[in-house]
Amino acid sequence: MTQNFSFIIAMLGTIAFAVTAVLAVIPKGIDVFGASVMGIITAIGGGTIRDIILDVPVFWSTDLSYIWVALVSSIIAFYGHHWMKKKYIYQLMLYLDAAGIALFVIQGADKVIQLNFAMPVGPVVLGLITAIGGGITRDIIAGNSTLLMKKELYAVPLTIGAIAYVFLVSILPQYSILIGSIVIIFTFLMRAIIIYKKLNVPKWMLIQS
Amino acid sequence: MTQNFSFIIAMLGTIAFAVTAVLAVIPKGIDVFGASVMGIITAIGGGTIRDIILDVPVFWSTDLSYIWVALVSSIIAFYGHHWMKKKYIYQLMLYLDAAGIALFVIQGADKVIQLNFAMPVGPVVLGLITAIGGGITRDIIAGNSTLLMKKELYAVPLTIGAIAYVFLVSILPQYSILIGSIVIIFTFLMRAIIIYKKLNVPKWMLIQS
Amino acid sequence: MTQNFSFIIAMLGTIAFAVTAVLAVIPKGIDVFGASVMGIITAIGGGTIRDIILDVPVFWSTDLSYIWVALVSSIIAFYGHHWMKKKYIYQLMLYLDAAGIALFVIQGADKVIQLNFAMPVGPVVLGLITAIGGGITRDIIAGNSTLLMKKELYAVPLTIGAIAYVFLVSILPQYSILIGSIVIIFTFLMRAIIIYKKLNVPKWMLIQS
Repeated sequence: MTQNFSFIIAMLGTIAFAVTAVLAVIPKGIDVFGASVMGIITAIGGGTIRDIILDVPVFWSTDLSYIWVALVSSIIAFYGHHWMKKKYIYQLMLYLDAAGIALFVIQGADKVIQLNFAMPVGPVVLGLITAIGGGITRDIIAGNSTLLMKKELYAVPLTIGAIAYVFLVSILPQYSILIGSIVIIFTFLMRAIIIYKKLNVPKWMLIQS
Repeated sequence: MTQNFSFIIAMLGTIAFAVTAVLAVIPKGIDVFGASVMGIITAIGGGTIRDIILDVPVFWSTDLSYIWVALVSSIIAFYGHHWMKKKYIYQLMLYLDAAGIALFVIQGADKVIQLNFAMPVGPVVLGLITAIGGGITRDIIAGNSTLLMKKELYAVPLTIGAIAYVFLVSILPQYSILIGSIVIIFTFLMRAIIIYKKLNVPKWMLIQS
Repeated sequence: MTQNFSFIIAMLGTIAFAVTAVLAVIPKGIDVFGASVMGIITAIGGGTIRDIILDVPVFWSTDLSYIWVALVSSIIAFYGHHWMKKKYIYQLMLYLDAAGIALFVIQGADKVIQLNFAMPVGPVVLGLITAIGGGITRDIIAGNSTLLMKKELYAVPLTIGAIAYVFLVSILPQYSILIGSIVIIFTFLMRAIIIYKKLNVPKWMLIQS
């Protein structure tokens, strides 16, 4: 994937992370400061945990666009929440979130592969943390049930994408950019179909409470 | 600010962090061990997260006074909680807490500026984490609602102080010690007035649940 | 202790951590993916936090057996949870957990002593984090009450063991392996007696809610 194109997806994903975070905490009653902190944590939390475990500089320390975009998106989402909650806006945010997590899981896995860290498990584990670590941190701080406890199929397509990427790159390392692009699109499509069809975790994977 | 004076404030802030932490978890039923862990986490948690993100040695590894003072304060607060809950003692703790967070946010921001990390956003973000990260971690572990979800004006004066400090030091770097002292006092006064007047988040900043 | 013997205990402890984690989250309703994440976090979370604070490579990056064993144990526990809940299996898991935490607290403390980090408080604090950090993280993500808020005597024997180990090794450093083995057995026995006799925190250590 080209740098520019993946940067645009990353920024759209960051916007979606921040906006959906703010909309998720508003029902509990929050002020614009707390909402912005939640938006920023959701947007950069996962990548921050990944970089700390990798012991490399946190990604946002050299590119502040992530924090600025998350901050501005959070404030807009806070004051425009009536408008943001409109069905088609919220649906758009869900699909942007899907594009964001599809990109972030593969970008995260790719960073780990470059560092040859804990192969082949490390890229899958840290790719997942990149994509969902921020959202889980947000839910914990807000006192909401985390996505791991929900029946929505959120992390499963990401796991499939990350495993596919690690496997394919290990046999065809010279095509990592092409493979990355295809796997991101494929992961996004899996998640998009789940959103569109409102698919839940299949019964054989689930124990009801 | 002189080293000695800021060390005294830091220790008073540590005592206030530990004592208010223990008093916050006692209503849920806890033993002296758990209470001490909560007191220590509250006192050193924020600075620890900051140092991990900065990738520098955690501050308490070279000066154990923070942990010892937090431990002893926690045990005293635990067994003396009936006395500590007395109105004037608790009020004293609130003002000591205000002095502590005012100091820690600026000290944290200053450490980040020295390392030239993610300027100018890094000092504000990590200064805030230094001051409130421990308290948020405590509330999460105790299963209490975190301060980000409350209507009290706790983090807003800290944010104003941190932004003011970063801005003023960037234009007058040679006066950083003087500026630091003034901003700490100014931040403390903002928070003290909020405590005294029991000010809440203004309505334009808030969405009610 | 010999390398091989301590590796076997570590793997048995990892199995117990993962299995008890999965059984702890199943009542809330979870899928096999979430359960596996919980099992892995519980098994490796504490050591990961320790290594991040120590600023050394996370232990599982050079030995993936911990993650694989936790993953497989979690999946087996998930699909075999009716069988795992049987009284004698669950009791076995409690004792394996006791062996695991006894080993991990002393191994963690020993790693910190080798690095001469924040002596003599560091080994106790980080030994405890090694043993109970994963379980606390699991409870936070699952929205359960953490062990710090419970009346069970879980962390107290670990603290006694860690303090004893640091003290004895400081006066007899040449016998660290022998001392380690004895303290692990002693810590395990304390915890085993607590499980067997169902001992709770004594009243003088407790404030009821």
